[in-house]
Amino acid sequence: MTSVQRSKAVVLTESNTPLQIWERDVPPPADGCINIRVLRAGVCGTDPHLWKGDQTLGGPVVLGHEGLGQIIELGKGVTTDHASSPIAVGDIVYWNPIRPCNSCYDCTVTQDFTACTNGTFWSPANQSQVWASYTEVATLLPNNSFYRVDQRVPLDAYIALGCALPTMLQAVDALGGISRGCTVVVQGAGPVGLAAIMLSKLAGAEHIVCIEGNKARLQQAVGFGVTIPIDMRSPELASMEQRRGYISRAVGARGVNLVVECSGNAAAFEEGINLLARSGKYLLVGTWAGSSKVAVSPFQVVQNALTIIGSTYASPGHYYRAIKVVQANHRHFPLVECVTHRYELADAQRALEDVAAGKVTKAVIFPQGIDK
Amino acid sequence: MTSVQRSKAVVLTESNTPLQIWERDVPPPADGCINIRVLRAGVCGTDPHLWKGDQTLGGPVVLGHEGLGQIIELGKGVTTDHASSPIAVGDIVYWNPIRPCNSCYDCTVTQDFTACTNGTFWSPANQSQVWASYTEVATLLPNNSFYRVDQRVPLDAYIALGCALPTMLQAVDALGGISRGCTVVVQGAGPVGLAAIMLSKLAGAEHIVCIEGNKARLQQAVGFGVTIPIDMRSPELASMEQRRGYISRAVGARGVNLVVECSGNAAAFEEGINLLARSGKYLLVGTWAGSSKVAVSPFQVVQNALTIIGSTYASPGHYYRAIKVVQANHRHFPLVECVTHRYELADAQRALEDVAAGKVTKAVIFPQGIDK
Amino acid sequence: MTSVQRSKAVVLTESNTPLQIWERDVPPPADGCINIRVLRAGVCGTDPHLWKGDQTLGGPVVLGHEGLGQIIELGKGVTTDHASSPIAVGDIVYWNPIRPCNSCYDCTVTQDFTACTNGTFWSPANQSQVWASYTEVATLLPNNSFYRVDQRVPLDAYIALGCALPTMLQAVDALGGISRGCTVVVQGAGPVGLAAIMLSKLAGAEHIVCIEGNKARLQQAVGFGVTIPIDMRSPELASMEQRRGYISRAVGARGVNLVVECSGNAAAFEEGINLLARSGKYLLVGTWAGSSKVAVSPFQVVQNALTIIGSTYASPGHYYRAIKVVQANHRHFPLVECVTHRYELADAQRALEDVAAGKVTKAVIFPQGIDK
Amino acid sequence: MTSVQRSKAVVLTESNTPLQIWERDVPPPADGCINIRVLRAGVCGTDPHLWKGDQTLGGPVVLGHEGLGQIIELGKGVTTDHASSPIAVGDIVYWNPIRPCNSCYDCTVTQDFTACTNGTFWSPANQSQVWASYTEVATLLPNNSFYRVDQRVPLDAYIALGCALPTMLQAVDALGGISRGCTVVVQGAGPVGLAAIMLSKLAGAEHIVCIEGNKARLQQAVGFGVTIPIDMRSPELASMEQRRGYISRAVGARGVNLVVECSGNAAAFEEGINLLARSGKYLLVGTWAGSSKVAVSPFQVVQNALTIIGSTYASPGHYYRAIKVVQANHRHFPLVECVTHRYELADAQRALEDVAAGKVTKAVIFPQGIDK
Repeated sequence: MTSVQRSKAVVLTESNTPLQIWERDVPPPADGCINIRVLRAGVCGTDPHLWKGDQTLGGPVVLGHEGLGQIIELGKGVTTDHASSPIAVGDIVYWNPIRPCNSCYDCTVTQDFTACTNGTFWSPANQSQVWASYTEVATLLPNNSFYRVDQRVPLDAYIALGCALPTMLQAVDALGGISRGCTVVVQGAGPVGLAAIMLSKLAGAEHIVCIEGNKARLQQAVGFGVTIPIDMRSPELASMEQRRGYISRAVGARGVNLVVECSGNAAAFEEGINLLARSGKYLLVGTWAGSSKVAVSPFQVVQNALTIIGSTYASPGHYYRAIKVVQANHRHFPLVECVTHRYELADAQRALEDVAAGKVTKAVIFPQGIDK
Repeated sequence: MTSVQRSKAVVLTESNTPLQIWERDVPPPADGCINIRVLRAGVCGTDPHLWKGDQTLGGPVVLGHEGLGQIIELGKGVTTDHASSPIAVGDIVYWNPIRPCNSCYDCTVTQDFTACTNGTFWSPANQSQVWASYTEVATLLPNNSFYRVDQRVPLDAYIALGCALPTMLQAVDALGGISRGCTVVVQGAGPVGLAAIMLSKLAGAEHIVCIEGNKARLQQAVGFGVTIPIDMRSPELASMEQRRGYISRAVGARGVNLVVECSGNAAAFEEGINLLARSGKYLLVGTWAGSSKVAVSPFQVVQNALTIIGSTYASPGHYYRAIKVVQANHRHFPLVECVTHRYELADAQRALEDVAAGKVTKAVIFPQGIDK
Repeated sequence: MTSVQRSKAVVLTESNTPLQIWERDVPPPADGCINIRVLRAGVCGTDPHLWKGDQTLGGPVVLGHEGLGQIIELGKGVTTDHASSPIAVGDIVYWNPIRPCNSCYDCTVTQDFTACTNGTFWSPANQSQVWASYTEVATLLPNNSFYRVDQRVPLDAYIALGCALPTMLQAVDALGGISRGCTVVVQGAGPVGLAAIMLSKLAGAEHIVCIEGNKARLQQAVGFGVTIPIDMRSPELASMEQRRGYISRAVGARGVNLVVECSGNAAAFEEGINLLARSGKYLLVGTWAGSSKVAVSPFQVVQNALTIIGSTYASPGHYYRAIKVVQANHRHFPLVECVTHRYELADAQRALEDVAAGKVTKAVIFPQGIDK
Repeated sequence: MTSVQRSKAVVLTESNTPLQIWERDVPPPADGCINIRVLRAGVCGTDPHLWKGDQTLGGPVVLGHEGLGQIIELGKGVTTDHASSPIAVGDIVYWNPIRPCNSCYDCTVTQDFTACTNGTFWSPANQSQVWASYTEVATLLPNNSFYRVDQRVPLDAYIALGCALPTMLQAVDALGGISRGCTVVVQGAGPVGLAAIMLSKLAGAEHIVCIEGNKARLQQAVGFGVTIPIDMRSPELASMEQRRGYISRAVGARGVNLVVECSGNAAAFEEGINLLARSGKYLLVGTWAGSSKVAVSPFQVVQNALTIIGSTYASPGHYYRAIKVVQANHRHFPLVECVTHRYELADAQRALEDVAAGKVTKAVIFPQGIDK
């Protein structure tokens, strides 16, 4: 099995230009590395943004930062996954594309791997070692944390929410946890919103409100635990004031303790602040791509003792915990059903377009073929 | 000593109307209450706001929510202060004017006394029991927590920062503490700002920046521990951009970890957000009175993983801890020097005007006479 | 309804002496109090201990510190429960017998109501106001926190674990929470153990081991979520070494992260420490009555970085959260089935004997009759 | 400067055998590594234990895990220290000998570097790369976190408490911090005890008791902030009961909130538990080498709601924070005065013997000569 592997990969050479399929030889893994055959590559809402050029990538990169793969060869010294569990060829692993440097202030002093700015996230296309997921064979480097998954759980369940689940686990850590019995409003019901709903449900939230304009998504959100679905497009709930009044009546006098922004719209931010009760907390996760501003009253923040928390991506441990959440709960949440669209590697361009058009709950690329 | 006491008090009958001196009989304390002779009554920045009518009070009230007094009589059952220390007539106590109800959701479930909305704060003027401090004799009710102070410490040291010190202790708790070695920017150097500086210094902050437009205050802030004073009125530091550049150069690559808003100006909020480094935290304390808004980017909050925390007033425990802070540190911080202006009870109107005009660091009323 | 109520109560006059039934007049509730008709009075494992004289009570007391009752009259000023929810005659409430003083160091500074030593717990029998639960009519005083329950949930579900559920919520707070995916060992499967198992399950523990010598209890523990039941009486698991080896093989290399002592046996303490993996935590709840000692190595505690946490009873907020836990989860856990034995008020003595003999999972007294 | 360096090192070849001086060639640093000239090597109390064979080392090792050195050459890619501060040849750094693997469960999931069992601590003597400190030239590998120190602070101040300061910072983190105004008892006044006293003082502890049998050490402890020194050898304080009574009278009714074990004696553990007030915490740091047991009552732990926390060594961030503590406070604590004994590299054997005999506060080896 230590032969060189031939692998195709989906490459973004330049923004707004059709994705290309590049082929390369993948050598046996170097010391501390492993080679894997990619089985599932989730299409994140971020991917179309990258394609549009919302972030500078500095040269051709292989796309894909959500992936499950099967180990085909272990480099020297690799005997366990990053949770210290023994691994062997044939095991399936879920991996973290974000590679901390392990030697900066954030990695060693604050131990906030998510703040490390030395880590390389995007996988350059012009090298044989590719840790991105839109490829047939990927190579995980020593600081690509990866964790073995239980193969008795459907693989689709692991990829169903993609990086949204570890991201939300990180956000909830930043928040200090979701209190049992509290009232949560989740703005938006894409994968990030579904992850927020799932974690709220697991934490024992009493009321889970979801504000969303897409009926199908809202319906799915109910399957994840939403108790008070709000269709923004229904005429009687079209304005912020109408929704605020409706929520207030539905959840009772204690009001809303937590709002989680998962829609990515600046306008949601304005609405969210006004929904919060005294001592309420606002977790911002969705608004990562953009720059528009919203008028906020610092007096309101003080008088109501509000806390607003911005959270970015996950650390390795959140990937591990995401696996645990999926394994323990995949029978109780419609995770597998989230994978509504499946694509061959060659159809990656279409996958991104479908995601951008809001057609899918979750689009997944199958680098070994849709039937694998 | 159980005789009825005759006592004058400063009464706000109606906003924007001269304060009045009312006189009343104070009966011996009821069960669970104590009567005290007020020795120091701090004039808070809030007091002129109340006078101007920025908050509705619902009838004539005795002013003053910062006070030190000497016990003249103990009601039945009172043998200790609220820290369980034995007390006796003659002891001096520092008390909390905010009276939690001890039987609501906030008092019993979240145990956040500062959120209790049943508690009565303002002391009605038309009753004999007055727990406000602009009076000769006050009566502390069972839920007016009070704590004995060490009389070997100058009384002025306890009143020097007034309620700003417990308020800031509460804010720092809400923040989760100030990290050793961090960089803090404090906006404003009134009592609230000085409290923030003092606690930053005690926590081991490496750089303490203070932005202030009043030279005398800025000088005093240096005495409390500011290492990088910034005079907003100096031409080369007049704009936000200039100050941001200056701070950035002064504190080094890691940037600003914490900003504490203590000025009460909405504009400071805009500046503060832009000063913060990745993972920075913004503690809002000053902006309690007002309603103007500032344009904030929710994208910036996410991308920089910022946390914004609004904090209001203190709980009983913070009053106790404020005493401990003063007792342990009054020799190392120029607390006593903060009391720049002293007034007789009859001059309360002038005291409020001096505070409103920004003439003082701390104005203190001496209900028993300035020489007591 | 404001008439005087006639009420029987179960009184412990002296240890090891048959319980007596006393009758008294219950006047209409004073200001801030409420009168309730007790519907369920749980028999706690502590009650037989009290009867045996393991704790000095200082005079005749009405027994019972677990109770659900229906409001029959509200004293002046009482319009909400202690969670600020409006209440009315006819509502059913769950109440906390422990009454904090609200004016000591623990109540006001550390805000640890469970440490308040001024609060009266036991309800003297020779007064008309009785807040114990072995009585037909109880009177809740202002600092007896009480919370309205949802009547659509079977009342037996609320009383099923009795004070063990709020007690365990407090213990888990002291612990800092149970981590998702961890391995927990619960020693003992009485109500305290079942509460620990339930909370471990809700927190997402991966492996939940239970060590118990009573087969029926062990079976019930499996219904609450135990994944690895261990019958101490089976020959192959009779010794600590055998159990340790068995657990080690069953839970895998990472070992045991948390042990919760719920058996009350000193010997369990010795076993528990030796079960813990590096960085493990030991939560001691059961060992409150007794004094025997166990040999512990402080070197082992350091080398394995262990934490040992003793926890006593609950604060008001834990009673509120216990209600929330029951309401949200009574369909998924066999709570109602825990009430295996029911008694009339007159049979309280027999109830205590059955509990002492280990015959019951939960014994409950029905002061209005078993069929109510 | 990129030439090969010739370096002597102190080697422990076999327990209870005289230390040897080995000489080796140190090549220029590999990628990611740096070479340093060691200026100070602290002798830890652990070193004599290693010499005696209390821990198996598996072959000859270079001794010394406390060190300050000057950079003589930077390997490729090294431009900053592990706090992201730019570094250059000539800078002085303080480094962490414990090298986490960065790829196990503890390093990536719990992020507790101190629990990593893959990391190599001891530096083998038969290789050119030596990261121990009893050597003229050391080579820091990529996961030897190191931090630049401010050279304006006396170098002796950094080494004065050796690894005891980062170790105690870790322990206090495990504790959750030391509360302002609390009462602390520190058992033992060696470097670990002095570190505990220093951090208690900085945290604002009101009473700091120290129990110690060596008069000189006790005197030094007073210089670090002890307010109540207790000489175990004085006849009136020779028994645990006498000391307990004395402490109780000295600290007042609230009792002892925190005990820190820094003596390494099992007997201290028994005494410590009995000193604690309700809700007290016991931090065990000293008892790492040994195995004797002490009788502990699990009932006492529960009834008094005690917490017992074992803590081992420090993570990289604690080394960084230790530097910050020294830089900010070296003028206010007699750190430099702790270095009571200085040795040439060739006298390492004598240094260990002096430490084992309790002759020193801190013994320091100067690999470049005592006058450097």
